[in-house]
Amino acid sequence: MEAILNALKDALGADAVRTGSEIESRYLGDWSAKSAHAPLAVVLPRNTQEVAAALRLCNALRQGVVPQGGLTGLAGGAVPTSNDICISLERLAGIEEIDRSAATMTVRAGTTLQAIQEAAEAADFEFQLDLGARGTCQIGGNLATNAGGIRVIQSGTARDQVLGLEVVLADGSVLSAMGKMIKNNTGYDLRHLFIGSEGTLGIITRAVLRLAPRPAARHTALCALSGYESAIALLQTLKARLGKELSAFELMWPDFFELGVAFSRSQQAPFSTAYPLYALIEHTSYANDRHDRLAQALARQLESGLLLDAVIAQSTSQARSLWEIREATAEFPVKLTPINFDISIPIGDIGNFVDTCRAQLQSRWPASRAFFFGHIGDSNLHVTVDGRSIPGVPPDALEPVVYDLVRTFQGSVSAEHGIGVHKRPFLGYTRSETELACMRSIKRALDPNGILNPGKLFS
Amino acid sequence: MEAILNALKDALGADAVRTGSEIESRYLGDWSAKSAHAPLAVVLPRNTQEVAAALRLCNALRQGVVPQGGLTGLAGGAVPTSNDICISLERLAGIEEIDRSAATMTVRAGTTLQAIQEAAEAADFEFQLDLGARGTCQIGGNLATNAGGIRVIQSGTARDQVLGLEVVLADGSVLSAMGKMIKNNTGYDLRHLFIGSEGTLGIITRAVLRLAPRPAARHTALCALSGYESAIALLQTLKARLGKELSAFELMWPDFFELGVAFSRSQQAPFSTAYPLYALIEHTSYANDRHDRLAQALARQLESGLLLDAVIAQSTSQARSLWEIREATAEFPVKLTPINFDISIPIGDIGNFVDTCRAQLQSRWPASRAFFFGHIGDSNLHVTVDGRSIPGVPPDALEPVVYDLVRTFQGSVSAEHGIGVHKRPFLGYTRSETELACMRSIKRALDPNGILNPGKLFS
Ligand SMILES: Cc1cc2nc3c(=O)[nH]c(=O)nc-3n(C[C@H](O)[C@H](O)[C@H](O)COP(=O)(O)OP(=O)(O)OC[C@H]3O[C@@H](n4cnc5c(N)ncnc54)[C@H](O)[C@@H]3O)c2cc1C
Ligand SMILES: Cc1cc2nc3c(=O)[nH]c(=O)nc-3n(C[C@H](O)[C@H](O)[C@H](O)COP(=O)(O)OP(=O)(O)OC[C@H]3O[C@@H](n4cnc5c(N)ncnc54)[C@H](O)[C@@H]3O)c2cc1C
Repeated sequence: MEAILNALKDALGADAVRTGSEIESRYLGDWSAKSAHAPLAVVLPRNTQEVAAALRLCNALRQGVVPQGGLTGLAGGAVPTSNDICISLERLAGIEEIDRSAATMTVRAGTTLQAIQEAAEAADFEFQLDLGARGTCQIGGNLATNAGGIRVIQSGTARDQVLGLEVVLADGSVLSAMGKMIKNNTGYDLRHLFIGSEGTLGIITRAVLRLAPRPAARHTALCALSGYESAIALLQTLKARLGKELSAFELMWPDFFELGVAFSRSQQAPFSTAYPLYALIEHTSYANDRHDRLAQALARQLESGLLLDAVIAQSTSQARSLWEIREATAEFPVKLTPINFDISIPIGDIGNFVDTCRAQLQSRWPASRAFFFGHIGDSNLHVTVDGRSIPGVPPDALEPVVYDLVRTFQGSVSAEHGIGVHKRPFLGYTRSETELACMRSIKRALDPNGILNPGKLFS
Repeated sequence: MEAILNALKDALGADAVRTGSEIESRYLGDWSAKSAHAPLAVVLPRNTQEVAAALRLCNALRQGVVPQGGLTGLAGGAVPTSNDICISLERLAGIEEIDRSAATMTVRAGTTLQAIQEAAEAADFEFQLDLGARGTCQIGGNLATNAGGIRVIQSGTARDQVLGLEVVLADGSVLSAMGKMIKNNTGYDLRHLFIGSEGTLGIITRAVLRLAPRPAARHTALCALSGYESAIALLQTLKARLGKELSAFELMWPDFFELGVAFSRSQQAPFSTAYPLYALIEHTSYANDRHDRLAQALARQLESGLLLDAVIAQSTSQARSLWEIREATAEFPVKLTPINFDISIPIGDIGNFVDTCRAQLQSRWPASRAFFFGHIGDSNLHVTVDGRSIPGVPPDALEPVVYDLVRTFQGSVSAEHGIGVHKRPFLGYTRSETELACMRSIKRALDPNGILNPGKLFS
């Protein structure tokens, strides 16, 4: 242990290797959990070469390493044990280049998402990935978890924003594939293997990101619906009318909606009556004209009876207050004892899943309060059960119930947050033995000593 | 040899295993080359289990296997040697399901692209992958090569159309990941590893494809430009105005353009004078209104002087005849002796690349005639040299010159057609040793006996 710490200090300089009381407590955990013990060390490399040097040393001594980004992860993927060395990317930050012609931005892994969004905007582009943790999460963490967020329906997940990637492999070799090309069919697409691998196959150090044009306008509406069938019909109508300009389609079941209103700043319900289902819709328009395709499309559906009611935001602040209902989730950790599920289900079956899941939870725990909402346009459902409604019942009692149902519905136990440690017991619920064996053989091939994020994803 | 053939016949039935004179000559090659010798056998499995049985047998006996789709490949990837057994997917065809709510189609690998497009259309959807070989190429081949085609700027390459995949691995195990979810962060994205792997990691047997809404209209225009800088400025303006509704941005340099006009049916030049550069542009509109955003955007650019001239198609047949100029490439094999290059270069540098490449070719072979054109919006340039202009000069004399330059420009030696055998010698031009080592270790992990498409991609 002394040996590795000294070797790291020799290679990176003493100030880049923190141990004992020098380790700030924030390195002990992510948003979901904290380690009970500090890691052996936190290493703070300044560039790719230093990441490579650190991994080379750790690999030689079979020292487990935990890559750390902004530590906003929700799966415990960046949480160390007391046997691990953390490699934090926070010093490897900054934007290296914006290529206006190629519409790309070259960034270092430790750059925060927000810094990237702002730099894109300043250059009259838009970086399309967006999520609540933007101010703290790092692009390296976003890529390592293949983060989703609020505009997946339009622009895909984190992996869809990446053209080039630089990764340091377990043995310290630097895999540099920093091309700016959109098409590149020369062998295996390694990029997509590292994206979403939660730090278990390599440490992402740099990336070439795609930039989109800045939209001309965003239009927001809240719709009231009679049920899930109508929601799907509406989704399809809007897709047909707006194509890829439909940028959000968020459904809220009544329990969630009422809570959302109660947790919002105004606390004012947008409708005077309650409805069976609510859809928050956003249209990102590139045409700089007054003519509002979303309003037109919704007007038609109000006439046809598909919509029971609709509010179309007439101002940015009105749009904000509609979004506030959906973003009430930010208050969950404060006002509830949330037990969260981030799952995906084939779009057509989500309504049925919600009913079945609610019924099962209620039959087992009659007092349980569950809230259903999510990015339905992306097949992503969130379920939050308020732990206070079922005192004494631990989350592990609920998990098998929910994930069993997810398996039955041929869904996935993690839509966007990843597996980390928390969902490791459930990975096999929606991935087959053959898939897991294939993943393990890739892991062995690229990290034969198993030093990269040991115990994460699989044991 | 007898042993394996008998075992295959036992497992799949005699009529599923063709040998000797039963092997039709079309199985000997793809569009780029033919094998001098017939393979040991052509095996025609009817379902996934039969593919699995065949691979299990071949793996046990370390028998090399060449997956064959529609045999329209341009890289020699499906061409067997006399030691190989071909596994043709042609009997494993058909559409299993269209899920309207999820907007997905479940297909077998041997289904032709055109059958998929037509089924999507009949269900009032669009399958967005499109390429000239649509009537013959199979979705399995499209995925194995990660085919591009004419609408990548809008909807990405083949990989972007896939939600679920079923693959038979070298040892005959069936990796089934046929989920319909858009988001699924549960471990490594194996899907993207198999897509584009040209049959070297597994045989694709089924897929869940994404369907898009059918567009309301397509608008086409041909623009005359003063040079590459203007082309990029136009591309950016159009992206900003049309977002993801910009569905084609094809540049043609004058040599190509004149040939294109000469090879077109009407043989009529759309402009009365010659210009330095031409852009063929398509806008796919989802809004069912008369108001034409492409025409408006181009009118503004004509005024501003960015465009020297423009023709906006007023009818489908006029659009067709504009496209005919670009699609003159179909006549190349007949009217030229084409030496083709399918490369990608960062978008901003393509103009410079074209000038440099043309100059280098001309300084070495003063009589050489080279034609430059391509999907510039996707960073994809095609270069065709007419072999008749440099009699006696073999393609291998040109290749190092062009690919050297591609390396210098940090591009890629294959944008969309893949490596197969033809580009194998050049893979290392734009992929680093670390990347290749990583690919090889994945290959070893998933196909330890090296039975899958031996000699393709790497040796
Ligand atoms: C308020 C809030 C809102 C959120 N909203 C969303 C949302 O809408 N959608 C969504 O998908 N997620 C969301 N998340 C989860 C989280 O923000 C994302 O997973 C984010 O991408 C994590 O980034 P990070 O830099 O904080 O990573 P960390 O938490 O530091 O690490 C996450 C994982 O990635 C690995 N890792 C980090 N950096 C690297 C690197 N450079 N190389 C290799 N591996 C690395 C770690 O080892 C760990 O396994 C939210 C979180 C919060 C707190
Ligand atoms: C007229 C014409 C136009 C073309 N235009 C384009 C274009 O615009 N863009 C473009 O990208 N390409 C284009 N191509 C190239 C070709 O059509 C594509 O590469 C196509 O995707 C190949 O499909 P296929 O079924 O014919 O595959 P094949 O030629 O049979 O095989 C191609 C490769 O895939 C492997 N393979 C095939 N099926 C499977 C399977 N089920 N599982 C695993 N491996 C498999 C083979 O082993 C081989 O390596 C064109 C070709 C022609 C002839």
